[in-house]
Amino acid sequence: MTSSLSAIQNSLKRRKLDGLLITQPENRRYLSGYTATDSSISETSGVLLIPVKGTPFLLTDSRFELHAKEEAEGFDVVLYPKGMLALLKNLLPKLKIKRLGFESHYMLHSSAEKMSSALGKKNVELVPLTDLVEKMRLRKQSEEIEKIQKSVLLNEEVFQEVFKGLKPGMTEVEVALQIETTMRLKGAERPSFDTIVAGGPNGALPHAVPSNRPLKKGEPVVIDMGLILDGYCSDMTRTVVLGTPDSKTKKLFRLVRKAQKAGMAAIKAGVVAKDVDRAARQVIEKAGYGDKFGHGLGHGVGIAVHEPPSLSKRSRKKLKEGMVVTVEPGIYLPGWGGIRLENMVEVRADGCRNFNKDTTFLDI
Amino acid sequence: MTSSLSAIQNSLKRRKLDGLLITQPENRRYLSGYTATDSSISETSGVLLIPVKGTPFLLTDSRFELHAKEEAEGFDVVLYPKGMLALLKNLLPKLKIKRLGFESHYMLHSSAEKMSSALGKKNVELVPLTDLVEKMRLRKQSEEIEKIQKSVLLNEEVFQEVFKGLKPGMTEVEVALQIETTMRLKGAERPSFDTIVAGGPNGALPHAVPSNRPLKKGEPVVIDMGLILDGYCSDMTRTVVLGTPDSKTKKLFRLVRKAQKAGMAAIKAGVVAKDVDRAARQVIEKAGYGDKFGHGLGHGVGIAVHEPPSLSKRSRKKLKEGMVVTVEPGIYLPGWGGIRLENMVEVRADGCRNFNKDTTFLDI
Repeated sequence: MTSSLSAIQNSLKRRKLDGLLITQPENRRYLSGYTATDSSISETSGVLLIPVKGTPFLLTDSRFELHAKEEAEGFDVVLYPKGMLALLKNLLPKLKIKRLGFESHYMLHSSAEKMSSALGKKNVELVPLTDLVEKMRLRKQSEEIEKIQKSVLLNEEVFQEVFKGLKPGMTEVEVALQIETTMRLKGAERPSFDTIVAGGPNGALPHAVPSNRPLKKGEPVVIDMGLILDGYCSDMTRTVVLGTPDSKTKKLFRLVRKAQKAGMAAIKAGVVAKDVDRAARQVIEKAGYGDKFGHGLGHGVGIAVHEPPSLSKRSRKKLKEGMVVTVEPGIYLPGWGGIRLENMVEVRADGCRNFNKDTTFLDI
Repeated sequence: MTSSLSAIQNSLKRRKLDGLLITQPENRRYLSGYTATDSSISETSGVLLIPVKGTPFLLTDSRFELHAKEEAEGFDVVLYPKGMLALLKNLLPKLKIKRLGFESHYMLHSSAEKMSSALGKKNVELVPLTDLVEKMRLRKQSEEIEKIQKSVLLNEEVFQEVFKGLKPGMTEVEVALQIETTMRLKGAERPSFDTIVAGGPNGALPHAVPSNRPLKKGEPVVIDMGLILDGYCSDMTRTVVLGTPDSKTKKLFRLVRKAQKAGMAAIKAGVVAKDVDRAARQVIEKAGYGDKFGHGLGHGVGIAVHEPPSLSKRSRKKLKEGMVVTVEPGIYLPGWGGIRLENMVEVRADGCRNFNKDTTFLDI
């Protein structure tokens, strides 16, 4: 994304920085196309060094050389056989980088201390930054929107396939594993988060972990699932019933669906995020279940499955064209269970576009 | 582990600290028994606050209350409805904590900055520490050894079950998914790392990612797998052949096995880690494959799948009784494939104990 790169370089210029070190893996992928993931914050598969002018660098070790050179178009791939700090110590003076920005929100305190003492405070001033690239990622470019659409559709395809085979007696863990296996067999890089399958009372926890409890006929089953395809995440929740739902389930399902539609109808560029949450929440409040909807209405999705903007009671952020958010109201009744429905939409000038086909089981 | 707690409190006293904040999830579990995991370093499911004297605290939010109270025996569970920093601001003066240690190696630079400004530099001096708890975790207590043994045996059981069904034509991804599914169905918490299944030439990369390449008759297939059971990790590698191995495969297999045995024979308390690496490496070097064994011989395993001590060329650490390490020599030939064999052993006064049954396919 050369346009993003020049935006970064302009931003460095304004901040009087000579360069920027990118350690956050999603930002790294966004800017360079390099798809490697990090096994943890202390085991990086490479960092970007972006000088205020000229060609940017991808610094990595020999294990990733081939991968990096294939993917990071426009980047100079430089290896660090003796570690990243040794390379930086050598490279920064050559590039005349004396004020270096770094991602304070993705650098361990101990790593920042080590870097500072390795480079020498007199030689390099380290300037902590947060969210510089994250802000650029808020509004998706058209090729990103296309990738998100494909990710959502593949996720729906996986859901449909597993849904057809659902039977009472299968355990939550079995269904979750089947979903994640199907994702990978259909070409997803991996699930975008741990799949939730929560039957009956287990559905009362918004973040339930699949258990060995068998699914029962007639009870609501919350399935929250997402995958990563070509770097972009999907995230969808459906609540299904094996057999015939009882009248309470039907009533609550319709209520959540109505709230979801109200939320989606409230979305367009210029609207404040909390007003979207409000639009959906008041449907549930009016029906007397306000205290049973304990989380925000939605969150941004892109290279990360949870990213800004948040659609919550308190968020004063204005929605902008090209943002992508989930709309996921829910009702959770301890001892009984839960209903949650989640779609992903694109914010547009005059409304929103639903990425989901939105057909499954919504005509209850 | 009350003994670990009093060791921590003694250590705080020596360092003239009034308390310690534990953010690292494995250290949190080690000290409190609280099993929750963190979805990322910026989304914690709780932190420990250990005053130099008296009852320790587990600070968390309402989603984890029940879970925390059930598991963290001997800890006061306190919720932070307004966030952790607001709670700390209130709690620290009550506990007269003015010098607070924190885990510099598991705290984001930005989080440390926020904490410092929220608490006020005049009120609380924040003291960065590293590896305080990690050092305690090096030597395993007897109940930890038992858990590790069970984790290793379950991992072998999973391997045996999947191994029986292996057939040419199955893809690496299929086999890896089958392994991970079997782990969970047999009661593992989760895999301890992403399973490696690497057939033929793919085996030449020590960190190969499973692909859609089908396994072929007669080629070596490297399977590196591990699981978490009751908080403790296992990690094992086997190289198998579907059908009859050719003479080259047999020769290299026997060589790696010989190196593994030499490594295991060199292990006992008091020995320097690099000498263990040396013992195994020289077997491979003498046969002319020294440059084809590009990684260290092993690493520590416990609550984390990779932890100190490292058995590498350069490690000057002395092995001590109760340490648990892998012994995993390998030979990697680009274009042809790889052979790696990995066991887990306990360091004892007079040798080592092999946790693995060590039967599978080692009599090639």
